[in-house]
Amino acid sequence: MPVYAAPLRDYRFCLEEVFDGEAHRALPGFADFTPDVTTAALEEAAKFCQQVIFPLNRSGDEEGCVLENGVVRTPTGFKEAYALFRDGGWPALTCAPEDGGQGMPHMVNVLVEEMAGSANLSFCLYPGLTRGAYVALKRFGTPEQQALYLAKLASGEWTGSMCLTEPQAGTDLGLIRTVATPQGDGSHAVTGTKMFISAGEHDLTPNIVYLVLARLPDAPKGTRGISLFVVPKFLVGEGHRLGARNAVSCSAIEHKMGIKGSATCVMNFDGAAGWLVGEPHQGLKAMFAMMNAERIAVAVQGLAIAEASYQTAAAYARERRQGRRAGTPAEPQAAADTILVHPDVRRMLLTQRALAEGCRMLALWVAEALDISERHTLPAERARAADFVALMTPVLKAFLTDSGSEAANLGLQVLGGHGYVRDNGQEQLVRDVRVTQIYEGTNGVQAMDLLARKVLPENGRLLDTFRDEARAFAAAHRNDSRLAEFIRPLAEALDLLDRATATVLARAPGNPDEIGAAATAYLRLLALAALAYLWTRAAKLALGREGDDFYKAKLATTRFFMQRLLPETLTLHAAIMAGAAAVMELDPAAF
Amino acid sequence: MPVYAAPLRDYRFCLEEVFDGEAHRALPGFADFTPDVTTAALEEAAKFCQQVIFPLNRSGDEEGCVLENGVVRTPTGFKEAYALFRDGGWPALTCAPEDGGQGMPHMVNVLVEEMAGSANLSFCLYPGLTRGAYVALKRFGTPEQQALYLAKLASGEWTGSMCLTEPQAGTDLGLIRTVATPQGDGSHAVTGTKMFISAGEHDLTPNIVYLVLARLPDAPKGTRGISLFVVPKFLVGEGHRLGARNAVSCSAIEHKMGIKGSATCVMNFDGAAGWLVGEPHQGLKAMFAMMNAERIAVAVQGLAIAEASYQTAAAYARERRQGRRAGTPAEPQAAADTILVHPDVRRMLLTQRALAEGCRMLALWVAEALDISERHTLPAERARAADFVALMTPVLKAFLTDSGSEAANLGLQVLGGHGYVRDNGQEQLVRDVRVTQIYEGTNGVQAMDLLARKVLPENGRLLDTFRDEARAFAAAHRNDSRLAEFIRPLAEALDLLDRATATVLARAPGNPDEIGAAATAYLRLLALAALAYLWTRAAKLALGREGDDFYKAKLATTRFFMQRLLPETLTLHAAIMAGAAAVMELDPAAF
Repeated sequence: MPVYAAPLRDYRFCLEEVFDGEAHRALPGFADFTPDVTTAALEEAAKFCQQVIFPLNRSGDEEGCVLENGVVRTPTGFKEAYALFRDGGWPALTCAPEDGGQGMPHMVNVLVEEMAGSANLSFCLYPGLTRGAYVALKRFGTPEQQALYLAKLASGEWTGSMCLTEPQAGTDLGLIRTVATPQGDGSHAVTGTKMFISAGEHDLTPNIVYLVLARLPDAPKGTRGISLFVVPKFLVGEGHRLGARNAVSCSAIEHKMGIKGSATCVMNFDGAAGWLVGEPHQGLKAMFAMMNAERIAVAVQGLAIAEASYQTAAAYARERRQGRRAGTPAEPQAAADTILVHPDVRRMLLTQRALAEGCRMLALWVAEALDISERHTLPAERARAADFVALMTPVLKAFLTDSGSEAANLGLQVLGGHGYVRDNGQEQLVRDVRVTQIYEGTNGVQAMDLLARKVLPENGRLLDTFRDEARAFAAAHRNDSRLAEFIRPLAEALDLLDRATATVLARAPGNPDEIGAAATAYLRLLALAALAYLWTRAAKLALGREGDDFYKAKLATTRFFMQRLLPETLTLHAAIMAGAAAVMELDPAAF
Repeated sequence: MPVYAAPLRDYRFCLEEVFDGEAHRALPGFADFTPDVTTAALEEAAKFCQQVIFPLNRSGDEEGCVLENGVVRTPTGFKEAYALFRDGGWPALTCAPEDGGQGMPHMVNVLVEEMAGSANLSFCLYPGLTRGAYVALKRFGTPEQQALYLAKLASGEWTGSMCLTEPQAGTDLGLIRTVATPQGDGSHAVTGTKMFISAGEHDLTPNIVYLVLARLPDAPKGTRGISLFVVPKFLVGEGHRLGARNAVSCSAIEHKMGIKGSATCVMNFDGAAGWLVGEPHQGLKAMFAMMNAERIAVAVQGLAIAEASYQTAAAYARERRQGRRAGTPAEPQAAADTILVHPDVRRMLLTQRALAEGCRMLALWVAEALDISERHTLPAERARAADFVALMTPVLKAFLTDSGSEAANLGLQVLGGHGYVRDNGQEQLVRDVRVTQIYEGTNGVQAMDLLARKVLPENGRLLDTFRDEARAFAAAHRNDSRLAEFIRPLAEALDLLDRATATVLARAPGNPDEIGAAATAYLRLLALAALAYLWTRAAKLALGREGDDFYKAKLATTRFFMQRLLPETLTLHAAIMAGAAAVMELDPAAF
């Protein structure tokens, strides 16, 4: 019953109309990514996702992973699917051409990742961490490390894995205990236990490259004493020949709510040979190079599940007949009308749809800036884009994964009891997407990152990368009567955001708890204001083209967003204004 | 790791202070339920829930139910636990003394059901449907049927089961196809397939009493042609001796997201002997007698999971150390502070807590009215209370189960990755509670029931049973400066509700879709206004008694509710005002 077809029409609309495809291709290295090339790549990816990994999604969930004698067996079919993924060159999309990569725009890659996530989230987690490992080594690795690993990671012959969390150290990486002892030959002996390690062990590739946070013997306490090490599962010799097995092993896999096709491992490092990546005690900096890329990838997972759940729920609603349209029956000759006649069913489906399409625009906006930050010829443009990415990365991670969870729950609800049973796949989406609100930094941590580290410093300078553009757009269209129904709520949302920002800026110096008390509501308020801006841009493109069903639907969905979803800003603003007192009053002992 | 201890202190506060225990005991038949008796019963129930069924909750989820040759094996320990439940007299709490029951107030029973649901929701579903079967037979059964079944159901020697849903007939019972053919001896041959039947088959009792919706041969089409039949699994002879096996069997059990310890059955009736309950073609009326009781029970399941999830999350937050309090460390000598210092963690815990305690008051308010509607000596009082129950039953069902889901997801989030793995039980609560938003009528159906059948008829007469009381309370305390911080938001919420009501009343005649478009938001708006009223009553009792930690915490939680949760009314009001247009605009073919 679960259905999925990549929304290629919306992809084209976003890439070429909402965003400026022409300008993007003018960035160095992107000239070849013409609409034809991009469309062909997306169609090829869609075929792989729909035909190869989507059919393994339910079976992978039912079967799960098995650990036997330290070896993880992935679900039936994953190995063959991974081989096709590797042979298709998919791991290399955003890797540099000199490493065998395709140097593809992040804007396109985001859509490939969306399709893969919609089709099979568990599968995505095997190649998913490879990119982070590649990025960290590309940026901080020695030439020797780069020669050893980059091409193998880009080709997908080996996968990467990030080993951060320990039982006592989750959000607080300052508590990490894993130690790395210099061996005098340039290597270190890494010893410690890591947990919640996605793709820590599997049977898809002959080698796995771990990037491990650990402490050198002379390390200061806390986060300033953490270094990054590269630890291969099998030591690598001349010509990338695999040598001895390193002293790293998987001692357990987690039994989880979802993503059961993905092995979440407890990894034991028992004096494993590792090599320092980057400077001593600067591991968190290198780690954040990985983490930011991963946060965007996780955000896209949320979007992916929203889209997948919407498609199945809409397909069900078009077929399922229960009850009659209010007033007069829609199809009197049938035993009942389809449930699409019921306004409350439409409310749920439209919420899913508006979230999926809106989150897609938001993801692409950040991906566009990421491309600019890496490639623009003008340093000032690169810097401005990098500021925008820094601002929006936590917003994207938290809002898109929250939206994925909300949309998946709505999709389940549309199917009712048929959504609660496993057969129709909707409940799996709810279980799978739930982890995205947690991993790569819980959404509460994203909100703190946004408010404390991105918005408040320098009197909101980073925020201006968003609000100046949105304000300018609203001002430029203030007198456009056709757009008035969208510009007015957009301007109101921006006003609420400004008031909230000013209030937290004013209160925070007097009471640092004001930041944490406002953070989650503030992140959602900013996200909704950003969506209001993007939806208005989309509506502007659609107006006057209602003869085409695509644009007609886009306008209807914009109106739904503006009238039914955007008003959440009222509540968020009120919650922020309420301040920290009510949150902090209850005695710790009373909880 | 999951913890649970019944919140007996809050139960006492609700029963004797928020509500008028004295007045309740003045109802006929309740004189014996003194605070001592009630407290003893609640303590006894708490012991059973904590010690007998709570330890089976995780194992029941892991093990699930097994169907072999038509026989359902419940999880290990359930059979023994059910025997203790039966022997303890727990099935009989609200049954009539003449049937061997205890005639206990619904107000107390609600709390017993809350405890049982917190401890083990799957277990609750075996005895859970018995009450509905008892109520339907008590009200509509012939004296012979009552003699055959009531005492056996009250004692829990047999369980009841409700067989409504069919594959093509879920919400729309008018589509039911099961037929009942008169056999000339007063019995009928019942033939058809029912699905999603909780406790349709199990190994806990020697007999099961099915209440089955089916059509007589001469039945009109649609809902006016449905009759109710009682169908025993084993035919019942003299002295309740079990005779031949009836032609009813379980052909499959569902594989579900949660409540895995509960058998959800596909039941085949293959010319099974059944007897008409009540009048021909009046089955829906009898069914609603069961359904309304069940809806309140399902609502309490939502509350139960909110409480259970809160307790485990709070216990975790008191122990888990990550990061430091903003500003200065709370415990500088420790490696890190407990996560209770973080405002965003407190926000999640306080939301859970405010939802659990608020939903408890709301459930007890409806239970109080249910008792009055059944027992008050004055017909006018009974009628008024019955109106209030009719109004509030859908509100309770939808809001409490939505809150249960929200709270459970927050509880999972507090534990982060440790909440996503199965070991700590939080993800099970999320999976288990999810069904409560669906069964006994989806929450969307509840919202339509509220607005279309309860609020709009007679110009909002039923709504006045709530708003007149709340308005009078707000007016009476308008000049109480100590209460001003609560009365003001309460009055604002009531204003928003009045405006929303007037708007929908005005719009509905012109466009029936206005009802469905507003329904879900309207139900939540009414629920939040009702909670604002109940929290204000609670705060009034707590003011001036802050020396007692219980009342101090109650005030802090009230403030959190008023300042951080109640403002959702702003968004709900705006969504209602937006009307049906944006919901109905998108072409059906475009979904």
